[in-house]
Amino acid sequence: MSSTTAVPAGARGAEPDVPDLVARTREFVREVVLPVEDRFDGDVTAAGGDGLRRELQGAARARGLLAPHAPVDVGGLGLSMVQRARVFEAAGYSVFGGLAINAAAPDEGNVHLLAHVATPAQREEFLAPLAAGVVRSAFAMTEPAPGAGSDPAALATTASRVPGGWRIDGRKTFITGADGAGFFIVMARTSGEPGERGGGTMFLAPAGAPGLQVGRHVPTMDRSMVGGHCEVVFDGLIVADDAVLGEVDQGFANAQVRLGPARMTHVMRWLGAAVRAHEVAVEHAAARRGFGSAIADLGLAQQMIADNEIDLAATRALLDVACAALDAGSPASQETSIAKAFGGEAIGRVVDRAMQLCGGLGVSADLPIARIAREVRPFRVYDGPSEVHRFAIAKRAVKAARLRASS
Amino acid sequence: MSSTTAVPAGARGAEPDVPDLVARTREFVREVVLPVEDRFDGDVTAAGGDGLRRELQGAARARGLLAPHAPVDVGGLGLSMVQRARVFEAAGYSVFGGLAINAAAPDEGNVHLLAHVATPAQREEFLAPLAAGVVRSAFAMTEPAPGAGSDPAALATTASRVPGGWRIDGRKTFITGADGAGFFIVMARTSGEPGERGGGTMFLAPAGAPGLQVGRHVPTMDRSMVGGHCEVVFDGLIVADDAVLGEVDQGFANAQVRLGPARMTHVMRWLGAAVRAHEVAVEHAAARRGFGSAIADLGLAQQMIADNEIDLAATRALLDVACAALDAGSPASQETSIAKAFGGEAIGRVVDRAMQLCGGLGVSADLPIARIAREVRPFRVYDGPSEVHRFAIAKRAVKAARLRASS
Amino acid sequence: MSSTTAVPAGARGAEPDVPDLVARTREFVREVVLPVEDRFDGDVTAAGGDGLRRELQGAARARGLLAPHAPVDVGGLGLSMVQRARVFEAAGYSVFGGLAINAAAPDEGNVHLLAHVATPAQREEFLAPLAAGVVRSAFAMTEPAPGAGSDPAALATTASRVPGGWRIDGRKTFITGADGAGFFIVMARTSGEPGERGGGTMFLAPAGAPGLQVGRHVPTMDRSMVGGHCEVVFDGLIVADDAVLGEVDQGFANAQVRLGPARMTHVMRWLGAAVRAHEVAVEHAAARRGFGSAIADLGLAQQMIADNEIDLAATRALLDVACAALDAGSPASQETSIAKAFGGEAIGRVVDRAMQLCGGLGVSADLPIARIAREVRPFRVYDGPSEVHRFAIAKRAVKAARLRASS
Amino acid sequence: MSSTTAVPAGARGAEPDVPDLVARTREFVREVVLPVEDRFDGDVTAAGGDGLRRELQGAARARGLLAPHAPVDVGGLGLSMVQRARVFEAAGYSVFGGLAINAAAPDEGNVHLLAHVATPAQREEFLAPLAAGVVRSAFAMTEPAPGAGSDPAALATTASRVPGGWRIDGRKTFITGADGAGFFIVMARTSGEPGERGGGTMFLAPAGAPGLQVGRHVPTMDRSMVGGHCEVVFDGLIVADDAVLGEVDQGFANAQVRLGPARMTHVMRWLGAAVRAHEVAVEHAAARRGFGSAIADLGLAQQMIADNEIDLAATRALLDVACAALDAGSPASQETSIAKAFGGEAIGRVVDRAMQLCGGLGVSADLPIARIAREVRPFRVYDGPSEVHRFAIAKRAVKAARLRASS
Repeated sequence: MSSTTAVPAGARGAEPDVPDLVARTREFVREVVLPVEDRFDGDVTAAGGDGLRRELQGAARARGLLAPHAPVDVGGLGLSMVQRARVFEAAGYSVFGGLAINAAAPDEGNVHLLAHVATPAQREEFLAPLAAGVVRSAFAMTEPAPGAGSDPAALATTASRVPGGWRIDGRKTFITGADGAGFFIVMARTSGEPGERGGGTMFLAPAGAPGLQVGRHVPTMDRSMVGGHCEVVFDGLIVADDAVLGEVDQGFANAQVRLGPARMTHVMRWLGAAVRAHEVAVEHAAARRGFGSAIADLGLAQQMIADNEIDLAATRALLDVACAALDAGSPASQETSIAKAFGGEAIGRVVDRAMQLCGGLGVSADLPIARIAREVRPFRVYDGPSEVHRFAIAKRAVKAARLRASS
Repeated sequence: MSSTTAVPAGARGAEPDVPDLVARTREFVREVVLPVEDRFDGDVTAAGGDGLRRELQGAARARGLLAPHAPVDVGGLGLSMVQRARVFEAAGYSVFGGLAINAAAPDEGNVHLLAHVATPAQREEFLAPLAAGVVRSAFAMTEPAPGAGSDPAALATTASRVPGGWRIDGRKTFITGADGAGFFIVMARTSGEPGERGGGTMFLAPAGAPGLQVGRHVPTMDRSMVGGHCEVVFDGLIVADDAVLGEVDQGFANAQVRLGPARMTHVMRWLGAAVRAHEVAVEHAAARRGFGSAIADLGLAQQMIADNEIDLAATRALLDVACAALDAGSPASQETSIAKAFGGEAIGRVVDRAMQLCGGLGVSADLPIARIAREVRPFRVYDGPSEVHRFAIAKRAVKAARLRASS
Repeated sequence: MSSTTAVPAGARGAEPDVPDLVARTREFVREVVLPVEDRFDGDVTAAGGDGLRRELQGAARARGLLAPHAPVDVGGLGLSMVQRARVFEAAGYSVFGGLAINAAAPDEGNVHLLAHVATPAQREEFLAPLAAGVVRSAFAMTEPAPGAGSDPAALATTASRVPGGWRIDGRKTFITGADGAGFFIVMARTSGEPGERGGGTMFLAPAGAPGLQVGRHVPTMDRSMVGGHCEVVFDGLIVADDAVLGEVDQGFANAQVRLGPARMTHVMRWLGAAVRAHEVAVEHAAARRGFGSAIADLGLAQQMIADNEIDLAATRALLDVACAALDAGSPASQETSIAKAFGGEAIGRVVDRAMQLCGGLGVSADLPIARIAREVRPFRVYDGPSEVHRFAIAKRAVKAARLRASS
Repeated sequence: MSSTTAVPAGARGAEPDVPDLVARTREFVREVVLPVEDRFDGDVTAAGGDGLRRELQGAARARGLLAPHAPVDVGGLGLSMVQRARVFEAAGYSVFGGLAINAAAPDEGNVHLLAHVATPAQREEFLAPLAAGVVRSAFAMTEPAPGAGSDPAALATTASRVPGGWRIDGRKTFITGADGAGFFIVMARTSGEPGERGGGTMFLAPAGAPGLQVGRHVPTMDRSMVGGHCEVVFDGLIVADDAVLGEVDQGFANAQVRLGPARMTHVMRWLGAAVRAHEVAVEHAAARRGFGSAIADLGLAQQMIADNEIDLAATRALLDVACAALDAGSPASQETSIAKAFGGEAIGRVVDRAMQLCGGLGVSADLPIARIAREVRPFRVYDGPSEVHRFAIAKRAVKAARLRASS
């Protein structure tokens, strides 16, 4: 049922005019979204939480900008990965921009996953309202130590057979958007032991079900995610057989359908935020003087500005290579790991240099850069720390070298 | 009157037992200060502001740990720069530690400056209560663009002669500790035009004087400084002749008495904070498992741990070189610029790697690392951005090369 | 007459099968070229110089691999920039590979330039034999200090009007391939003064002409270039009117036709060399053991291997972006500067890490890595040092920021 | 018998005047050594090999500069590690400078080892002529894969008991100075199996002994070491009981006596070479103009110049910390690993930036920088690659963290 192509068959409509979409997304973000972000220093809770989300998504819907990644039959724009890249970057120019067009994590990745894996009934019940922004969702995979984290095989939450369904028990943490989510995609172990690869299954569970309890928000440095990053406890949660998403014991494989693309859309959005930090900084440095010259014309500033241009261009280029591979049906594991590891670090460097270019104002809320820094830093950890991606990248390279040597 | 040796004549008492002082400072910080820091996530305002300060300084005084840098005749411990290094590092292990021993910016630098430059009357009126923690102070030099910033010669605030004294007019910003300070050291132009080197004079002005108005707090990312970083307006502030600190038109030269050492004590304190981030991270990585091993035993973690050890050791070594030069009476401009530029960046790298080593917890308030990151980042800008120090370092190297070439 | 599209009109034949060409180039390099490189440690003079060149180019011609970049009407394969990228990378796997397919500097760039700018007569006299490998050529632009170097406007060589032609006087240096070249493209100033932009003209001059003297080889660290990097003196060299290449005073503009693409083909070839260094190193590290494991499976080696994969992928991605822009007719100044600056440094890092992965053997001639390091290092200087590209990249970014701010 | 203090008891004379020694070493190197280095592009074989060595050492002896590290009773200057630091740096300003004062690897480390471990008879037979420059020596430890390399425990060469002595069999490689050495210190396994720590013993063997055969020179990129880096075969070499250096099975422990200090003296010498590269580059950049300014006054050049100053200062500071610890009798494993890892990389960066600052000349033999680059690069591998030091540094830090956590 699952497919590795980025866009499921039948999900696309007429060929979209991507440059126009990018331009309109950019305009929408500048006119509608940035003012809210700036007023509330990027704190989505202070800005209204789900109320703000509904308001912004309403405005995006009115402009035909909602859910560019969702299949057209559920109201989305059916964009391929390559097409999403520039649109999501334009949205990400505001840290609320992904949310505004209903392309924020984790909903965006969940839409992608459901579009590939859901049954028609699941599609109607879960995908359609999610794509339309009627509900939010959560993806409950990460667990407190020593459970599933960077190493998913450590999965400890269990789903055991009960008549007509499954009983789920375990603890999760860092579950983005859990507080207020309409439903959860839960990864639980249906066979094997923690440490073994395989044996995972994904389940769909509505919020409010007995035995599903959302706990405290982990107090992370970022503040732009509606619903926070929460602890979640499953204590005898019962779900029916048709709650299985994909197939039993195929959860890890299906998670890959979500993870590669979700990793790339993260890069797209944060790339947009880095572009904003860079633009603000260069404009600041061009306007301010010191040592008898505009700051932006001093050599040490030029170094930082040029390095930012290079990092932005390289991130974009690696992103496009990975997206093209995904669109061609490849799992693109090496390409997405490379783009995530490089992009995550490059985006951090860009924002850091932008901050430095602005001196004291750069570390204050008088400019948006400190806020962007706070939002992008966790991204070097979320969706796989750079180190785990490097580990995987090296293993594939060494495997290839051994094949060459033995041939 | 001013002297370039780090410890003014007559200011020292019996030779202090520095290792013992370090050990007791460490113990004090762990027992008394860290619990408060952790309870309030390093937010000094939330933790009580000046009330907290008085409480912590009282505890430090009771243990004989107050003001290690102040002359013994005003109640300090009379330590040289080299001796301060390890003590301030031990204090800096908590972001409230400098405050607790009354060695936080800007008071610590102001004590140092007053000890070198103040008249006996100024010493009694301003230095003694400051060293004792009875009052706080501020150093009002930085101005909004296009005034004095990284380039102090842009100084625009003016002091003009009036009968029996001076009238000061101008705007300042990023004045650390201004809100609640008992007095201000104000840098104003008594001759020349903005852009010209020279012509600055320092004045002592009590808080609450007519024409001295503390404005809003600049909303910077750091939160550990009592009294914030404020905008200050001088609108016809009148001070008497004896308010001149040092001599008229010698303000820039005297500022160097403060800046070199103050730059080093900043490095000392933030080095302590970086040590804490590193220790917390290594302990975390040693306790947590992934991929069949303790995280700390994985090669990619070892790289980060080793790089942290190297950066901490190099910062400490460069600091000691600069402090020894200062103690020997050198202005040590090259040494302090090198230690500040390297140390500011190295400390940032250490904290960033520590954060990465702890994964999701690293970017949350469940560990102290995210808070330390927020506090140390502005330090790459405060007291001269790395770029300005590099500019100065290169100019001195080029000047030396030209001398060699022409000899 | 000049055009900014990468492939001149009428110069292309039937659409080439690029993947097949890449595969055959790869096979040719491994079978024919690498053995010679390895036998002579990449020293082209020791390996036979022009004799080797003719032999290798003969073999390439026999396989239909000669001059992939030259127009089809002069015997080339008429590839676009994007198409060249993978073919030149495959050739560059050997440091003699570019030479073997007649796509080495400076001939490759000169073919490109002549294809865009030459008159039909010049095309027949100079381009055709150059593309066929009958002669070599040189591009005489760089001058000893204080003449044209990173800053071309400093051009000091003059061409002055004489009846029926021009008289050229001046000194050049670092003229690649000069010793043994059949003809020279000479940049000389026909108007203005050194330091002024504009006023340059390109001339074609046959080797052996009176007044054109090739001097010593600058003893550079690289050894793979036939004809070395030479000093050249023009002392009353007389050329006829039809020796002007392009138009009088349009030399700097026409040089851009050559420089952007030549910069990219440099990256392509050295990228191939870096790929070889990386592959050799990973195979070595996979085969050798230490600390109870294959070296390649140790975390600190994995870090280097992964960073190499990332740097290679990013260089390739930026190269393709710049080539696509050139193919679309853009001067692509920002894109080629970014690809050159990033690629030049990334290639250096890759080879350096490869060397480190191989320990003692890495710094010896028992593996090809030390030789590749010696060849690629100058490339961070040739065709514009990274610093000059960064300077240009920053200036364009600042100009764009000023435009945004003023709009 | 062995001691861990850096200077063995009784080995020192009257307190030396180190600044004077530094000044005279500097003068000697500039007057006598640099001209030879420059004439022969640092190729010691071309410059005369052992003949050159004797000539230079004769000149050093005449000036009282020979063997600053050797005990006074064998004709040396008896300097401590801290005292050596500046003297060896001054010598290292030329890549022949260490050789000239008889303080080059491996003899310098062998003198140090013998001074600590040799019996009176060995002292007379081996140490005295070595310190006087009458003979050269080699330290035969490294083996071809899978033998002893970065991981010494892999030691495979064996020494087995025969009547009255030992029989040594095995292969060594990268044995510096072997060709022409008067004697060898051979590490061989007297107990245990390859992979086991312990069981090594050091033996003294005269060159020319039957069963000791010096093979080919490994063709490494550096060319300043007399006697090259050679393959050596032991095939039934018989040595007497009194050839044991130190005690049987204590070879690895005694090797530490040599390795820590030898690591530091490597850093000292190469630091001197890096200083030369930097000084040459800054003088070049100060004298040459581009873009309307001296190159050295351009911001992007200032960045490189400042980074060089910082790297040089930090290397020196870490070196002094490690030397002081060695002088105090500590094995200083963490300090020497940190100074070697940082210094090895920093020196490489300094020379690379110096090269970049000089453009085309930087990569040519017209300046000494390319030669220095060729000499210092292998140092990141020799005496333990940076990666192995990082591995050790991290392990110690993790061990300390576990101790803290469990206390």
